[in-house]
Amino acid sequence: MPTDSSNMLKAIEDFPHQCRTALELAKGMAVSGKISNIIVAGMGGSAVGGDLLRLYMHDSKIPVTTIRDYKLPDYVNESTLVFAVSYSGNTEETLAAYEDAVRKKAKIVAVTSGGRLWEVSKKTIKIPKGLQPRAALGYLFFPVLGVLVNSGIVKENSAEIAEMLDILPQKEEFRSFGEKLAKKIGSRTPLIYASEQFSAVAYRWKTQFNENSKIAAFSHVFSEMNHNEIVGYQSMGKDKFTAIFIRDNLDNERIRKRMDITKEIISQKVEVEEVYTKGTYLLSRLFSGLYYADFASYYLALQNKIDPTPVHVIENLKKKLAE
Amino acid sequence: MPTDSSNMLKAIEDFPHQCRTALELAKGMAVSGKISNIIVAGMGGSAVGGDLLRLYMHDSKIPVTTIRDYKLPDYVNESTLVFAVSYSGNTEETLAAYEDAVRKKAKIVAVTSGGRLWEVSKKTIKIPKGLQPRAALGYLFFPVLGVLVNSGIVKENSAEIAEMLDILPQKEEFRSFGEKLAKKIGSRTPLIYASEQFSAVAYRWKTQFNENSKIAAFSHVFSEMNHNEIVGYQSMGKDKFTAIFIRDNLDNERIRKRMDITKEIISQKVEVEEVYTKGTYLLSRLFSGLYYADFASYYLALQNKIDPTPVHVIENLKKKLAE
Repeated sequence: MPTDSSNMLKAIEDFPHQCRTALELAKGMAVSGKISNIIVAGMGGSAVGGDLLRLYMHDSKIPVTTIRDYKLPDYVNESTLVFAVSYSGNTEETLAAYEDAVRKKAKIVAVTSGGRLWEVSKKTIKIPKGLQPRAALGYLFFPVLGVLVNSGIVKENSAEIAEMLDILPQKEEFRSFGEKLAKKIGSRTPLIYASEQFSAVAYRWKTQFNENSKIAAFSHVFSEMNHNEIVGYQSMGKDKFTAIFIRDNLDNERIRKRMDITKEIISQKVEVEEVYTKGTYLLSRLFSGLYYADFASYYLALQNKIDPTPVHVIENLKKKLAE
Repeated sequence: MPTDSSNMLKAIEDFPHQCRTALELAKGMAVSGKISNIIVAGMGGSAVGGDLLRLYMHDSKIPVTTIRDYKLPDYVNESTLVFAVSYSGNTEETLAAYEDAVRKKAKIVAVTSGGRLWEVSKKTIKIPKGLQPRAALGYLFFPVLGVLVNSGIVKENSAEIAEMLDILPQKEEFRSFGEKLAKKIGSRTPLIYASEQFSAVAYRWKTQFNENSKIAAFSHVFSEMNHNEIVGYQSMGKDKFTAIFIRDNLDNERIRKRMDITKEIISQKVEVEEVYTKGTYLLSRLFSGLYYADFASYYLALQNKIDPTPVHVIENLKKKLAE
């Protein structure tokens, strides 16, 4: 077993506690004035936080968009609320997007543990240092949600929070499922699918496999995959790929039927594993759906004798970019 | 060679002509009144048309969003312009989204060759029948653009159109590049990357490989792939994957540097092929960038002794969904 693997396991096991702590971090912070649209600017795990916010606010009258780029769309103006989210505070794309938000006179709240973003931002939620950014998803999401609740944009729902804080600490279930799934995946490339409502959950699975397990992994959504990606299975084999469906009992009935039929069709070519979200509220369903991935990707790393924690290639790339 | 392959080649070779014809189809159709946001509701090739519109209108003050789902976001209202786009007119997700747009009192324009959408829609651009939907991208995109020009939302730029209609008919270049690339890909899984500005081009490549060549293929964007997917290359091999970069000389300088460094890093693990967009205007750069994929995916199908035209698995799925 790699020497450093316990760090990542500790961070993963601490995730429910992190979510609880993160819920407190926005205390007292709110924005005022007209808000026509919300943008979360960030990369990697920070961007997943933005995608989760978009999914969570699917019934809001205010559009939420995640921007993974150096610039913001040209419709951004003084009635746009921009969250600039970077764990390190030194993500160059997010810093550039922050500057663009200033230029476009948007309302801005930064979420960061320090770095350049902490220095330049006037309104900042400071989050704890010392984690791999991907292990800080609770800190990257809940403070943003907190600001929206404090500002009257999102309605507080204590039952929903309570349900999530009851479900996530049932760690042994997530852990053992993840460990078993890692064995089933073996050396295959995982392809993860969810409905549009859970698209960020599928994408989080993909990125956790990329970064923790250091393997290829891809995600797509229902029903779009029924219009193209499904055709590719014609030439795929059980030795190369495994499909993982994120299932939710409250997904649109047609989507559930599509998943059943797709499973039947592609099972002739690959193994299909299914993961069910937990809870009745959307918040629990989103976060339980993605928590499994932390364990599955962690155990897959150990299985392949890979240290899940460091991502040397990203560090290497950053060095070359700075040259 | 499969008997039916010439149909698809004919459709591909006819694409520049299709774009020219499609530009005429919106003649006289416009919308009026306040437009706060634009939504393109569609699946597969129709949704790619929506994504291309979003990229094309990147400097617009009006946000453009593609929805690949049964329902529209809850911010849709009477100042939303919804394009309901379905080649057959019988795509169930698009029909449901159309009904949702009616419920939400949006302004609606349908684009279809017939079917149920033609029957229910009050304002429709009728496009020619008889193609595979993925071979009708010109018909799915340009009429939408035409309505926006006629409505004063997008500024007409005849130099831009002229450049595109000059570049796309240089078919031999696109064809021979595509044929060579297909040979290089062989039996590997192509992974296609572009900047955010060309994300829909990379996705179009992916779906053309899925549907024409009947193989697995995936796409992602710069710089997000630098934050996760790049780590997966650690365990990838030259025999399994080929990376294809869609390059554009006007992409952000940092993105171009990221592509160069990423190429250097991942070249140790896989072959990296590069495709350059053509032209100076964005329209030519988008459409030239994706036109190569038609030929590459077509020749890859022939190479694998696959008929590029039919997508039996999608027909099979639709039958089961109707049961």
